[in-house]
Amino acid sequence: MARIVMKFGGTSVADVERLGHVADRVAAMVNGANGGNEVAVVLSAMAGTTNMLIDLTREMATLHDAREYDSVVSTGEQITIGLLAMALQERGIQARSWMGWQLPIRTDGVHGSARIEDIDGAEIARRMGEGEVAVVAGFQGLSPNRRVTTLGRGGSDTTAVALAAALGADRCDIHTDVDGVFTADPRIVTAARKLDRITYEEMLEMASQGAKVLQTRSVELAMNHRVRVQVLSSFHDAPGTLVVDEDEIVEQAVVSGITYASDEAKVTLLNVSDRPGVAAAIFGPLADANVNVDMIVQSASPDGTSTDMTFTVGRGELPRVEAILAEHRDAIGFKKIITDGEIVKVSVIGVGMRSHAGVAQRMFAALSEKQINIHAISTSEIKISVLISAEYTELAVRSLHSAYGLDAA
Amino acid sequence: MARIVMKFGGTSVADVERLGHVADRVAAMVNGANGGNEVAVVLSAMAGTTNMLIDLTREMATLHDAREYDSVVSTGEQITIGLLAMALQERGIQARSWMGWQLPIRTDGVHGSARIEDIDGAEIARRMGEGEVAVVAGFQGLSPNRRVTTLGRGGSDTTAVALAAALGADRCDIHTDVDGVFTADPRIVTAARKLDRITYEEMLEMASQGAKVLQTRSVELAMNHRVRVQVLSSFHDAPGTLVVDEDEIVEQAVVSGITYASDEAKVTLLNVSDRPGVAAAIFGPLADANVNVDMIVQSASPDGTSTDMTFTVGRGELPRVEAILAEHRDAIGFKKIITDGEIVKVSVIGVGMRSHAGVAQRMFAALSEKQINIHAISTSEIKISVLISAEYTELAVRSLHSAYGLDAA
Repeated sequence: MARIVMKFGGTSVADVERLGHVADRVAAMVNGANGGNEVAVVLSAMAGTTNMLIDLTREMATLHDAREYDSVVSTGEQITIGLLAMALQERGIQARSWMGWQLPIRTDGVHGSARIEDIDGAEIARRMGEGEVAVVAGFQGLSPNRRVTTLGRGGSDTTAVALAAALGADRCDIHTDVDGVFTADPRIVTAARKLDRITYEEMLEMASQGAKVLQTRSVELAMNHRVRVQVLSSFHDAPGTLVVDEDEIVEQAVVSGITYASDEAKVTLLNVSDRPGVAAAIFGPLADANVNVDMIVQSASPDGTSTDMTFTVGRGELPRVEAILAEHRDAIGFKKIITDGEIVKVSVIGVGMRSHAGVAQRMFAALSEKQINIHAISTSEIKISVLISAEYTELAVRSLHSAYGLDAA
Repeated sequence: MARIVMKFGGTSVADVERLGHVADRVAAMVNGANGGNEVAVVLSAMAGTTNMLIDLTREMATLHDAREYDSVVSTGEQITIGLLAMALQERGIQARSWMGWQLPIRTDGVHGSARIEDIDGAEIARRMGEGEVAVVAGFQGLSPNRRVTTLGRGGSDTTAVALAAALGADRCDIHTDVDGVFTADPRIVTAARKLDRITYEEMLEMASQGAKVLQTRSVELAMNHRVRVQVLSSFHDAPGTLVVDEDEIVEQAVVSGITYASDEAKVTLLNVSDRPGVAAAIFGPLADANVNVDMIVQSASPDGTSTDMTFTVGRGELPRVEAILAEHRDAIGFKKIITDGEIVKVSVIGVGMRSHAGVAQRMFAALSEKQINIHAISTSEIKISVLISAEYTELAVRSLHSAYGLDAA
């Protein structure tokens, strides 16, 4: 007997037939070996529903009241949880649906990207003890003003992990349309392998560096509350990848995976005057406008009086960034601005690199061998990222996958 | 300055464009003559949405948990109220949406056809006083167990009238796809006229006898709380029909309207033994099964020992009624059962008939003149209904409309 939170995403609940399969899987978990399990389920909206609702709000008004937007776009999950509760009951399983305001799942008041502050799990824990499955709406919560909030894209992962933490669950199973976390995107690297285990830290870097398998915030939350997360397929019944503490992994590879993120753009300011405070002059206005700046590289010019400043931002932010920089051109003092949307960030991730030398060198050598030019580099304790031209994406990822010995035998 | 509740049905909010027109109408009411009005709006779901949701629940499970059903089908109104609040804000009007659980609109726990018990209008009344439009979800409420309930078909009319009563509103405007209440269905009688005023009692009979313009329960509620209701078009700007107290109508016609209801079926039991308690033996089991029986006619047979019993039920109930009667055949004691779904109930309605003789006779004469046979008759103080073969529907309604002098000049 264990207490399990099961999360299913939009493609897993895309229609009545798939919801039926989800009901079968939940029923199997409830009736599982060793006397069955206590189960809570977290669902997304049917694939496409949330986008359809977002489109409706855009058509309706250019001025968005984020509170009304949240109220509208949160209806998709209300539909799937009600349907799944019915389907479970038809299979002889006690079940009831819970919307964010009913538990409640308390969040802050930042509509559209609210953060969960507290989940009251007492009532559903009591009912789970009596054999009732709690079917909980992902992605939504209740603000301090008793308005409906949403958690932003992929928010249902966060709901699931937060609920698992609140319930002291033994495991949080995130069912997706892939079989687990891979050493690289299997669509690019046919030799990619599914990882049996990965550390929270690595998963966090992978999620931030482009692997779309889990939402970054859900991994942070899992790490902070030490929630054992499993990423697995919703379509076939096989073990996935377990996200765990480092000490649960006996033999740790130096590098666990290669990721790429192609949603960034490069901005270069030429001939910025090389004086104290110039970085603040550039990045202050961008921070004020809530632009996330990722990699930053500053290179001194030969004459020593001016410098070139290169950084990356989300590709969708590029027009806004150009406008902001143009507006502050005099205060910053630069000669020319060059932008490039045709770039990709490739990252090598592994907790093992903390205790191994030469990991970065192997990356640079592998890219150099394929004549791939590096535009920028950034590193953390367990990650090395490089910026390269987008056309080399597949070549770079495949070469690095081989270079670090990740290819399946 | 007046306090007005405006209700718009599904066809009036069927898409973003129509919601925009609704926003324009609401804005005009807010900014209206004499310093503007305090406005609350009640909306249905977009036409088609609720049926689509009902279909989903039917596909999902044959066994319906009515609580989950209500939770799913109530999402349609959540979408339209959020969208309208946005559209109003874009027009410079303060507005916010309110779901049933947020006000709250308290109902009993009869899911699928809950009754409103209480609406807490204090907070929205305060905000309306500050110029904010309350956009309230129709059709839904909150049960004593804090589950979402729905009020049944046409429930948004009831929400609007109950809200008007709770707010002490000066008027409740029900916007529909017709221009008001007519002396007869204008699709059948081209000479039908829109009524300027109609009494609660007449409106109640009309709603019960087949006029689909207002839900019966909403009229009851309006009558009990003396809410002034106006039925008017949502598509063009013209006065509709005001539903008011009898003493507000100066010159009352003998007959106000002719209605027909084609959703009934006739059941005849032949050779029922003519003994005390036989009616109870027939209608007891039907009442236990929640079957609504409408007209009842008992005719003695010539020999005096047996009788024929004819009554009408909703056409959709016919298979269930036949099964119940077959089950109780021995207890009732009848020779044969005959059913007829090809019938229609035509009614003549008017408070004036209380003080006028010969009203029924004129009906029978008009039908007789057209060779239309009457299968059954039932009367109330302000209504005479006859059951006739469905094929005569249009002929009967048109003839009666003329016979009572209702044709437009």
